[in-house]
Amino acid sequence: MKFRTELINFADGMTLDSGDRLEKFELMIETYGELNESGSNAILLCHAFSGNHHAAGKNNDSEIGWWDEIVGPNKAIDTDKYYVVCCNNLGGCGGSSGPTTINPSSEKPYGKNFPQISVKDWVNSQKMLMDKIGVPYWHLVAGGSLGGMQALEWAISYPNDIKKAGIFAAASNSSTQNIALNEVARESIRKDQNFHDGDYLEHNVIPKSGLKTARMLGHITYLSEELMDSRFGRRFQDEDSKVDQEVDFEVENYLQYKGEKFSESFDANSYILMTKAMDGYVAGQDIGLRDAMKNVKSQLLIVGFYSDWLYPPERGKEIQMAAMDNNINSSYIVLEGAHGHDSFLFSSEEYSKVISKFIES
Amino acid sequence: MKFRTELINFADGMTLDSGDRLEKFELMIETYGELNESGSNAILLCHAFSGNHHAAGKNNDSEIGWWDEIVGPNKAIDTDKYYVVCCNNLGGCGGSSGPTTINPSSEKPYGKNFPQISVKDWVNSQKMLMDKIGVPYWHLVAGGSLGGMQALEWAISYPNDIKKAGIFAAASNSSTQNIALNEVARESIRKDQNFHDGDYLEHNVIPKSGLKTARMLGHITYLSEELMDSRFGRRFQDEDSKVDQEVDFEVENYLQYKGEKFSESFDANSYILMTKAMDGYVAGQDIGLRDAMKNVKSQLLIVGFYSDWLYPPERGKEIQMAAMDNNINSSYIVLEGAHGHDSFLFSSEEYSKVISKFIES
Repeated sequence: MKFRTELINFADGMTLDSGDRLEKFELMIETYGELNESGSNAILLCHAFSGNHHAAGKNNDSEIGWWDEIVGPNKAIDTDKYYVVCCNNLGGCGGSSGPTTINPSSEKPYGKNFPQISVKDWVNSQKMLMDKIGVPYWHLVAGGSLGGMQALEWAISYPNDIKKAGIFAAASNSSTQNIALNEVARESIRKDQNFHDGDYLEHNVIPKSGLKTARMLGHITYLSEELMDSRFGRRFQDEDSKVDQEVDFEVENYLQYKGEKFSESFDANSYILMTKAMDGYVAGQDIGLRDAMKNVKSQLLIVGFYSDWLYPPERGKEIQMAAMDNNINSSYIVLEGAHGHDSFLFSSEEYSKVISKFIES
Repeated sequence: MKFRTELINFADGMTLDSGDRLEKFELMIETYGELNESGSNAILLCHAFSGNHHAAGKNNDSEIGWWDEIVGPNKAIDTDKYYVVCCNNLGGCGGSSGPTTINPSSEKPYGKNFPQISVKDWVNSQKMLMDKIGVPYWHLVAGGSLGGMQALEWAISYPNDIKKAGIFAAASNSSTQNIALNEVARESIRKDQNFHDGDYLEHNVIPKSGLKTARMLGHITYLSEELMDSRFGRRFQDEDSKVDQEVDFEVENYLQYKGEKFSESFDANSYILMTKAMDGYVAGQDIGLRDAMKNVKSQLLIVGFYSDWLYPPERGKEIQMAAMDNNINSSYIVLEGAHGHDSFLFSSEEYSKVISKFIES
C-alpha cells in the first residue's frame, strides 16, 4: 500500500485550551489513498495513547501501522476508496511538535516545558490540518480509546466539518480508576533517578526503568483477564529465554519484554503529557455531555467491547444515551472483543462489517 | 480488649517446602481471649499480604488491628468466647523472622538471603506454633486473600487439626492477571536506585519510591472501580492539601498519601517474598484441587464479594465445586461488599452473621 509521510508546518502557531500560546508547531502526518475531486472521501484517524501517525502498512522501519487490520485496500476503512489521514498528536513523540522537538525560543528540546495539551487542542490542531491540506470536511473521524475521545470531541466542536464519528472503546471522560492507574504510571516515571524533574534530555539520559514499569502496567490494563489467562496461564518461563532472571512466569517475561521495548522508544514527558490530557478530558466540561451534544450533526457509531475493563461498554452507553436525548442518528454496539481494551485495534468479521457499513451508510 | 503479644522461638528450625533449611526462627504472635480447658475454642487468623499479627484492638502504637471490625468481644469472631491467635507470617516484616531480622549465621540482617517461603511453609510453621502453644486443634482457621489461601491449605494439609476453615476473597491459586500485577509492583521495587539488588540495608537506605509505587498500584486493585468513583470521582485536590505538587485529582492525592505511608513501614524484600509466595501457590500443585481436597475433614465457608476484581467470586466457586465433588460440608456465599477486594476486612450485617453462624454451627 502506498502512503505519504509529511511534516506540516503551522508557522502561526495556535492558542491552546489553557490559554498558553504555541508560537509555531508541526504535525507529522501519514496519508493513504487519494482525495477525490469533490473532496467527499476524506477520513481522519485519531490515534490512542501510544500510537502515532503511522496507522497502516509497513513503513521504512518495517513497522506495521497500529490500525493495519482495519485500514488498507479492501479493508473496513478502504484506502482504495477513501483518502485517509492520520497525524501524530501534538505533544507526542512520533514527529509532531512535542517535548523532544526543538523549542524555537531556546533552541533546545522543549522537554518538560512543552505546554500541557488537551484533547480539545488535538482536535483544534487537526481542524487546522484539515484546512491546510485542502480537505473540505471529514466523511469520518474515527479512533479508539483516546482516539475515540477525539472523534467525540470533533462531533461536538466542529459539527459542520464532520459527517460521521466512530467512537471505539472510549468514554466521554476518564473514570477515577483510569486516572488512578495513570497516576501510578506517572509516579514510576517521575521517581526514576534519571527523570531529573523532566530535564533528562539535558542530562543525556532517559528514565527507562520508570517508562518500563509504566508500560508493564499499561499492558495489563489493555488486555482482558481472560486473554492473559488463555495466552499465558500459570506457565513457567523457560530458563533460556528469560529476559530477566527475576522472572518465573511467562506472563512476567512477556511484560518485561514489552515494557523494555517501549521504554526504548517512547518519551517520558510525552507519556506524562498524554496521560494528563486523557485524565483531564471531559466532553462538555461546563455544561454536561447531554447539552454539549446538542449541536452534533454527524452520525455516530459507538462500539464497546465486553472484554474491555479499562473503558468498559457502559462508558460507550453513556454517550449513546446523550445522543438519544438529542435525537442524534447514533448506533451503539457491544462486541465480544477477544483482546480486552485493545480489541478496537483488531479486525473481526463483526467489527469490520460494523465499521464498513457505517462508512457506506 | 486485652491481648498478649509474644515472640515464640523455634530453636530447631524447619525444613522449607523448597528443601532449604531455616536453622531457627521466631514467630511474632498476638492472642486474644483465653483457651478453655478442653482446648476446643482456639481460632487461628491468617493475615493477608500486608497484614501482621496485630489483628484486633489498639496496640501500643495506637494502631487498630487489621480485622478489628470482625474480631473482638461480641463481634463475629468473639474473643469473649474464643481464644484467637494471629501470627506474623514467616518472611514478613512484623516481627517474625524475615529479611529484616538477624541471620544467626552472619549476624547481619538476612536481607535478600532470607529463603523464599511458600504458603505451605506458613501453614507448616503455624502447625508448629499450634503444637508449641498447647492448642490441641483449631476450631477455625480463617483469613482473607492470601490469608484465605492459608486457611484452604490448612484444611488440605492438616485435616485432623482443624474443624472449620473460613476462606474469604481468596482463590486456590493466583490468576495470570494477579501475577502480572504483582510483577509490576516488584519491578518498581527492584528498579529503585536504592534497592541495590536487595542489599539496601547494608547501604543504609530503603527503596522507598519503588515501594510507594507498588503500594499505589496495590491500592487500586484492593478497591472496586465503583468505590473509587463514589469516594473520589473526578474531584480536584485542594491546592493546600496536596501531598505532591504533581497531583491534580483527589484520587491521585489519596494514592500518593497511602503509598508514602506504606513505604515508610514495609520491607521491600518482604514485599517481593510475600508476593512470590502468593503467585506461586497452587492448592494441590501436583494432583489438582479436586484430588487435593479428598482428605479434607473440616467444614468450609467460602465467601466472595461481587465488587472484588482481584479475586472475584468465581475463584471462590472453583473451591466450592471441588468441595462438592468431595462431599465436603461447604458453604459458598457471594456478598455485595462495598470495598472491592478489601471487603473481607470490613464488617457488614450479612458478612458478620455468616461468619458467626458458621463458627457456632
